[in-house]
This record gives sequence, structure tokens and C-alpha cells, in this order.
Amino acid sequence: MVEKIKNFFKEKDRFAKLLGFEIVEFSKGYAKVQAVIKDEYLNVADVIHGGFLFSLADYAFALSSNSHNNLSLAINANIMFQKAVSKGRLTAVAKELTKSKKIATYEVKIFGEDTDLIASFYGTVYRKDKKIIVP
Amino acid sequence: MVEKIKNFFKEKDRFAKLLGFEIVEFSKGYAKVQAVIKDEYLNVADVIHGGFLFSLADYAFALSSNSHNNLSLAINANIMFQKAVSKGRLTAVAKELTKSKKIATYEVKIFGEDTDLIASFYGTVYRKDKKIIVP
Amino acid sequence: MVEKIKNFFKEKDRFAKLLGFEIVEFSKGYAKVQAVIKDEYLNVADVIHGGFLFSLADYAFALSSNSHNNLSLAINANIMFQKAVSKGRLTAVAKELTKSKKIATYEVKIFGEDTDLIASFYGTVYRKDKKIIVP
Amino acid sequence: MVEKIKNFFKEKDRFAKLLGFEIVEFSKGYAKVQAVIKDEYLNVADVIHGGFLFSLADYAFALSSNSHNNLSLAINANIMFQKAVSKGRLTAVAKELTKSKKIATYEVKIFGEDTDLIASFYGTVYRKDKKIIVP
Repeated sequence: MVEKIKNFFKEKDRFAKLLGFEIVEFSKGYAKVQAVIKDEYLNVADVIHGGFLFSLADYAFALSSNSHNNLSLAINANIMFQKAVSKGRLTAVAKELTKSKKIATYEVKIFGEDTDLIASFYGTVYRKDKKIIVP
Repeated sequence: MVEKIKNFFKEKDRFAKLLGFEIVEFSKGYAKVQAVIKDEYLNVADVIHGGFLFSLADYAFALSSNSHNNLSLAINANIMFQKAVSKGRLTAVAKELTKSKKIATYEVKIFGEDTDLIASFYGTVYRKDKKIIVP
Repeated sequence: MVEKIKNFFKEKDRFAKLLGFEIVEFSKGYAKVQAVIKDEYLNVADVIHGGFLFSLADYAFALSSNSHNNLSLAINANIMFQKAVSKGRLTAVAKELTKSKKIATYEVKIFGEDTDLIASFYGTVYRKDKKIIVP
Repeated sequence: MVEKIKNFFKEKDRFAKLLGFEIVEFSKGYAKVQAVIKDEYLNVADVIHGGFLFSLADYAFALSSNSHNNLSLAINANIMFQKAVSKGRLTAVAKELTKSKKIATYEVKIFGEDTDLIASFYGTVYRKDKKIIVP
């Protein structure tokens, strides 16, 4: 089932496709995704855009929260921008912290190539009664 | 000076260019930006991606916080996703709430075409001693 | 009904009672509460404790989110501390931003005596199917 | 020096004293604090007040961020309320995530007696050039 959800995200998340996000690991409540910084993702200070970092974290968050095959909608997210980087590969790791019937919470950390912490993200979802993959 | 900063953002923010963000109004501590939803910005639920909404809010936030010609770096942001939309024009309005020598805070609201609230965003910047435009 | 909910909060919120929080205005989706700073609410820097400010905002948030007589549980909150104060009366004003069947969002601002902005707060609740006051 | 800072907090943080917060462990960039839930800390739903949980996390955050003997002021905090509890001992553990000259970030987790996660907290401080303990 996890494999089917992964393929569903790969095909259907058009924004993740546009930004070149790749799923590296994926299991229940867990996702690791990567992206390579390109010049077109930079901001006026010549560092990676906060929106790009958020989007990468959000993708890992969406994967991990939807990994149980319950459609989960993001309702809140908080991000701390901890280090500015301008090139290389970024890795976002999402972990489930808690899960109840309707609400679940996640933590995502983004690391740079040297494993420095680039950004930290908390996200909360509302879990709908709808399946993603109908068997 | 505000005009020069605006042009600087238009030219130099490559991620905003990639995503088609347009500056509609801009003055000290204030920015209004717009974007049109395209299919490639949607997520698996066929609604606009949270990362796209964050990026749009973040761009308005960056403009308003840099409007005083002090390079300002985002250190934290929080976003509440309040309504899912899948098409039309989005408008993000950023306002300065407080500004001290080194720290300033902003509020950004994103509205849909029918003026419904789509997302609400709080952001904090650290203000560097560096000018953006050197006269 | 709003009057009954107000009395319920006045009697039952023991933490608000301990900290001297007073309800000044209360209607559907709206609450204004006040508190007077005492020496015992200060931190090591001799200014009002962040925990006290959060608690005051949280009380206004709880009132406004429960004003519809649906038990509402806080799931996330974000606070920006914008000005340090050490005495006088604080006023927290909570407004409902959005409300759906299960999720609602709120914004709370805390002002000092001179109407300066002291803190800004965003809160999200999960709305249970349970009534607070059973008619 | 860490011992002196600990004693300074024990004596000077009057709000922490009022709420019965105790420092269990304290070292550079790290703090563990505890509190016992009393009836007077409960809210209308008969569970521990969100303001009390935030205050406990905030105290651990203040200790860890001030542990380097640089006066550090909280500028932003985000909290996810993950489980409701109504009695027993709470333990908040604060860890430093990043630290630069002027900005530092922290993560605090609150656990209940059964080690369940009760709340998760992110905090950002602005580091002043002022020492807490002048040798």
C-alpha cells in the first residue's frame, strides 16, 4: 500500500514535480525527500528561497501524513530558517510525532550536504475519512 | 528608493519569477502581490500546494520587510491553511506589525478571487546592518 | 447562550482565575480579556513572562472559539513577542478568522496601556461534536 | 557559571516560582524542568491549561537559551498541543538546535508520567550583548 501511495504522489503532486523533489525513503509515518538547489530557486540574497525550503518540508510532511492511506489536509505549519545555503543537495526528513483519529502532528528537519541543519518545521493535519488508494 | 527595491526584487528573486508572482502594490512596510493558479502548482488533492501558498506569502513578507532598504532575513514563519482552492488569482497582502533595530514582524493574508481568506501567515525577520540599494 | 458560556468560563477556568484574567467583552467569535501585571508574573529580565502573555492570549482564544457552544480544543498556537513590558494593564483581543465544521482559526493581539502591540497570536482549534452548555 | 545561572533563574523567575516549576537538569544548551499538575492549573475541560503547558516549555526554553550567559529574549514560539492530561508530573526537555551570534533556536518536548508526548514547542531567541552573570 505504501508503494502505491508513493507512486500516487510521484504522479499527482505537480508542484513537487516542477521543483524536482525526489522521494528517497518512505514508510508509515516517515518520509525522506531530496532536491538539488538550482539558480532559479534563489532569492535576492542569492540563497535558497524560504518558499522552496518550506515546499520541500511540506512535501515530506504530506507524504508521511498520508502514508496511512487517510487523506490528510495540512492546517498549520511553522518553520524556523536556521542556515542560509546557496547550492548542493537538500534532504528533508519527516517523522510522525502523534496521531489520533482526526489530528496528527509531524516534525520535519532539512539538512544540507554537510548535514548542517538548514530549517526545522512542525506541521499539523486534519485526517479525513477518505482513503487515498481505494483497494 | 522603494521603486529601486521593487525593481531589484523583480530582477533578482528568481523563485518568484519561476512561479509568476507579480508585485501589485509596494510601499514602506507594505506589499501586495498576486499569482494565478496553474495546473503545475497543484498537489495530489488537486488543490493549490501549501508550498505555493507559503511561497507567495513569503514573497510579500520579503518585500515589506526589505522595504526600508535594510537587508532582512526571515528567521521564522507560521502559516494557517484556511481554505482549499484550485483555480483563479491569489492576492497576498503583507503588513508590518512591529519594527525595532534588529527584529521586525509581519502579517500576511492570502485571499482568493471571491475575497475569501485562503491562508494567514506571521513572519519574523532579523534586520542586518547591510543596505540593499547602495545610493 | 453566550452569557451562559461566559459564566461557565468564569467559574470553571481555574488557571485564568489564578492569574486574574477578566472577561471585558464576549460575543460569537470574539473576546476581549484583561489582566494587570503583578511582580509575581515577571521573569528574570524583570518583564512580563512569555508564559503569562501566552496564557492571556490563549484565554481570549478559548473564549472566542467556544463561543458557538461547540467544545473546541486548541491544537496549535504561534506567538510573536513584540514588546517587553513590566507593568500596567494588558488587553487581549481575539477574533475568529475562519470556521468550518471541524476546524476554526483565530487571531489574538495583546496591547499594553499605551495601545502598543505587545504580542500577536494565531490559534487553531478542533471542534468536537459536544456542546458546552446543554440546554 | 551554569550553576550561577541556574540559581539566578530559581530566585528571579517569579512566574516559574508561582507555578511550581523545578529545574531537574541544566547544562549548556539543555534544560529539563518539571511541574506537578494541580487543580488550579486546569481549564474548563478539566485538563491542564494550554497556558500552563506553554509556560513550562517556555521556562525550559529560557533556561537553555540563557545557559551561555548571554541575555536571550524570546521573539517567537510555536506549540502543538498533542495530548490532554489532567494530573501527574510533567517533564519539559529543551534542546538547542542552532546558535549564531544574534539568533538561536530551540526545541522543547513535554512528556507526561507515562512518557507520552503532551506538547511540542519551537522557540527562537534574539541574543543580546549583555551578560546575565557578570563575573
